[in-house]
Amino acid sequence: MPVAAHPFDEAIELEPTEASGWLRGRTRPDWANMVGPFGGMTAAVLLRAVEEQPDRIGEPLALTVNFAAPVADGPFDIAARAVRTNRTTQHWLVELWQDGAVKTNATAVFGVRRDTWSHTEQTRPAVPEPVDVAETGLPDMIAWARNYEMRYVEGAVPGPGAQPEPSSVTTLWARDRRGRALDFAALTAISDIFYPRIFLRRGAMSPAGTVSLTTYFHADGAQLAAVGDYVLASARANRFAGGYFDQSAELWSETGELLATTHQMVYFKA
Amino acid sequence: MPVAAHPFDEAIELEPTEASGWLRGRTRPDWANMVGPFGGMTAAVLLRAVEEQPDRIGEPLALTVNFAAPVADGPFDIAARAVRTNRTTQHWLVELWQDGAVKTNATAVFGVRRDTWSHTEQTRPAVPEPVDVAETGLPDMIAWARNYEMRYVEGAVPGPGAQPEPSSVTTLWARDRRGRALDFAALTAISDIFYPRIFLRRGAMSPAGTVSLTTYFHADGAQLAAVGDYVLASARANRFAGGYFDQSAELWSETGELLATTHQMVYFKA
Repeated sequence: MPVAAHPFDEAIELEPTEASGWLRGRTRPDWANMVGPFGGMTAAVLLRAVEEQPDRIGEPLALTVNFAAPVADGPFDIAARAVRTNRTTQHWLVELWQDGAVKTNATAVFGVRRDTWSHTEQTRPAVPEPVDVAETGLPDMIAWARNYEMRYVEGAVPGPGAQPEPSSVTTLWARDRRGRALDFAALTAISDIFYPRIFLRRGAMSPAGTVSLTTYFHADGAQLAAVGDYVLASARANRFAGGYFDQSAELWSETGELLATTHQMVYFKA
Repeated sequence: MPVAAHPFDEAIELEPTEASGWLRGRTRPDWANMVGPFGGMTAAVLLRAVEEQPDRIGEPLALTVNFAAPVADGPFDIAARAVRTNRTTQHWLVELWQDGAVKTNATAVFGVRRDTWSHTEQTRPAVPEPVDVAETGLPDMIAWARNYEMRYVEGAVPGPGAQPEPSSVTTLWARDRRGRALDFAALTAISDIFYPRIFLRRGAMSPAGTVSLTTYFHADGAQLAAVGDYVLASARANRFAGGYFDQSAELWSETGELLATTHQMVYFKA
């Protein structure tokens, strides 16, 4: 009996093409956002496109994804090109193309990690265990969110009749609903799991979209595979002004490791 | 009598070339770092290359600069290309070339700001006024640092016999020593004004270099020009592991406005 592919693996699946560095993928309905695909999935696919290059060295260190134009439902082509290969680091340029235009562009830095002095200076929020937090989620019309089990410790998405909140902090436990293990692509997707901070501050949903997303990876692949499936994700905004706000967030393992830090600039109307 | 150009303006000066989107500049000895130019100046030059494009719309919103290889002293060519122009935002790809190779690559998002609901959620550190903080700086061998007046409130660079510190926080007042007004290029340079956080945690200088730098701009050009010349710059690391650490920082005006938030991933040996 064939084993059904996991929906996340289906969505990041890329086919080789005849052109060097070019891969082909397609959006999947179960990863749709309000318009087009979930940005975290687009980011994950771009990262995966680098991971699949035969000349890639090391593991992801930093990824910046710029959401230049809406990705349409359907097929897309990704071009990944190493702009520089050093002894232990490699710099990549990645573009998602549809209909002859760049829809999303990214830069990635991959590298080989070494044993060094290490310390986590950021402190993990003090929160209850996942089992002690009610499972809620995002409104049902947001298809991609159904792929995650979400347990909001604070700052859940405002519902009908919600009031503006003085803080933009959201902290939640999240994991893949079907138990897929964490890897860099999964962590990249989770780095965009937060609904826009402006919703919380205004007490209502409103038009908003990420324009640029940067993720720094602190754990290596072996550590990621070993930490379990729940991620504690905590985000806040620093300033809202002129139709844009920034967000900074941390992604922690259940066992207390800081797996990634991630930042974004977001367009909003309000 | 001719007016001498300001050293910052000299260093970001770019000449047009015959090729569309290509500009030519050169490194300047007074902006040198230990090896090659100050990364903040390289970032500023890449931003300026976009500002000078005739088809550029709006002002900087987000900039990511990847330091792929050392920039050599001497001339360089910068290619700036709009990968996408929307109604109010524009996405740019920028590359600094020397000797037939990309040394630094960047993406930038420019956009038109609009009047919206606004709020600064991050709080400015409580610090004394600049005049009440002693002027120190970085070691004299670091040429670029002499262009800034630096007044460290906390976390000054460790000197001989320094001990490891439990915190990586550095907060300083900084301004252009010759009183050049703030603009986006100047703010971009200041976003890289911090010496590597690992120095503070280890109590000594050691090899380190930024691999990727992202800056989010919160003020518009008119606000920047109006806020005065001192910037309160505060940075900290989140995690050091595997030869890399990340840094997050805020840049504030003297009058309390959050001008920019900035993040970087840094290579280190220790």
